[in-house]
Amino acid sequence: MKRQAGIAACDFVKSGMNVGLGTGSTVKYTILELGKRIRDDGLNIIGVPTSIETEELAKKVGIPLADLDSLSHLDVVIDGADEYDSNFELIKGGGAALLREKIVAQASKAMVVVADERKRVDVLGTFPLPIEVTPFCHETTRKSIESLLRVRALVRMNGDGPLLTDNGNYIVDAHCGPTILRPRDVEQQLLHLAGVVQVGIFSGMCDVVVLATPAGVEVVRNPSGRL
Amino acid sequence: MKRQAGIAACDFVKSGMNVGLGTGSTVKYTILELGKRIRDDGLNIIGVPTSIETEELAKKVGIPLADLDSLSHLDVVIDGADEYDSNFELIKGGGAALLREKIVAQASKAMVVVADERKRVDVLGTFPLPIEVTPFCHETTRKSIESLLRVRALVRMNGDGPLLTDNGNYIVDAHCGPTILRPRDVEQQLLHLAGVVQVGIFSGMCDVVVLATPAGVEVVRNPSGRL
Repeated sequence: MKRQAGIAACDFVKSGMNVGLGTGSTVKYTILELGKRIRDDGLNIIGVPTSIETEELAKKVGIPLADLDSLSHLDVVIDGADEYDSNFELIKGGGAALLREKIVAQASKAMVVVADERKRVDVLGTFPLPIEVTPFCHETTRKSIESLLRVRALVRMNGDGPLLTDNGNYIVDAHCGPTILRPRDVEQQLLHLAGVVQVGIFSGMCDVVVLATPAGVEVVRNPSGRL
Repeated sequence: MKRQAGIAACDFVKSGMNVGLGTGSTVKYTILELGKRIRDDGLNIIGVPTSIETEELAKKVGIPLADLDSLSHLDVVIDGADEYDSNFELIKGGGAALLREKIVAQASKAMVVVADERKRVDVLGTFPLPIEVTPFCHETTRKSIESLLRVRALVRMNGDGPLLTDNGNYIVDAHCGPTILRPRDVEQQLLHLAGVVQVGIFSGMCDVVVLATPAGVEVVRNPSGRL
């Protein structure tokens, strides 16, 4: 199922494009397929990875890579999601890469999300909302997040210490439950907390979901989307 | 002048308070005076410094210090500003400490700003607006800031490389000119750029300005303030 969806997402990629490459178990199949099409069909693209894991896989399968800063634009990013709702709002950051994923998604002209149907929810928040915070006074920031959202929020651990992101920050997971009716408002309120670096709500970004279901792949387009 | 204003600000500090200690040439006199009152008058406070410079000075003059995370609250923070307007909106971050200063100010029940009258402007923005950004793809973020504000924005340098903040980030200075009529809107738009960590606009925080003028010290209260 995941494999089929990952491969189907490649149809949004055409020769000449600069392509953001997300991270995760479904996007992995997208990356493998892009490598195959480069070898077999002469597909000509430049990839921008959102994690070291993706960078290594993309190199292995022969996708030419570049730094976002060296490109004038990105045509499309293909990435996973931890949850998405009927308005195509996303929760991301289960893999702690939300900041880089968001920079890449925001720089891109379009976003394709690959997911399986368990990620589809009526209201976001059952998946704990990842929030990247600066280490300085992170306990104060964690408590501010709890007060603001009125939920429990925990620093994500890695063994004995806080998990460190690629950017040297911590992740706080807010256990909201399915209560995030207005994701953009929640994002905005959290961004106003001084210690919050970035929020795992991706609002107004996703143009299409390539969905793996037991019945096959379904391509669900955002009516307000760019694709 | 600065000395008089720095000392006058101490009148907002009472025994039993937890006090945020800002950074700068005027706040320096506040810190010296607080040390004096601790020694001579038995003033009993705990200080929370916003920079290593301030921490060292406060230790030297005998102010007991604590980490914000170990305190339940802050009663007041005394800090400087690079500009303030008639609505008591501030630009801060000339010293690259805006993130820590903002975390401390946001955690505090009140904020006293010490300034001289050159910092008073009709419209914010002549002082280049400092914006803390994550190093990853900072050039993309810098260009996004330029597009959003339609002004020139430059990475602040330290010799040959970008200046590194206490949090391991970079500073982008946006040369807005006196155009920031709605500081809170500008702050909000900038915070939505994924690579922006924090913005040097302090909106709705300043309760009183202790102003140094050639005619003496003037205490200007924010009519919507908490003091």
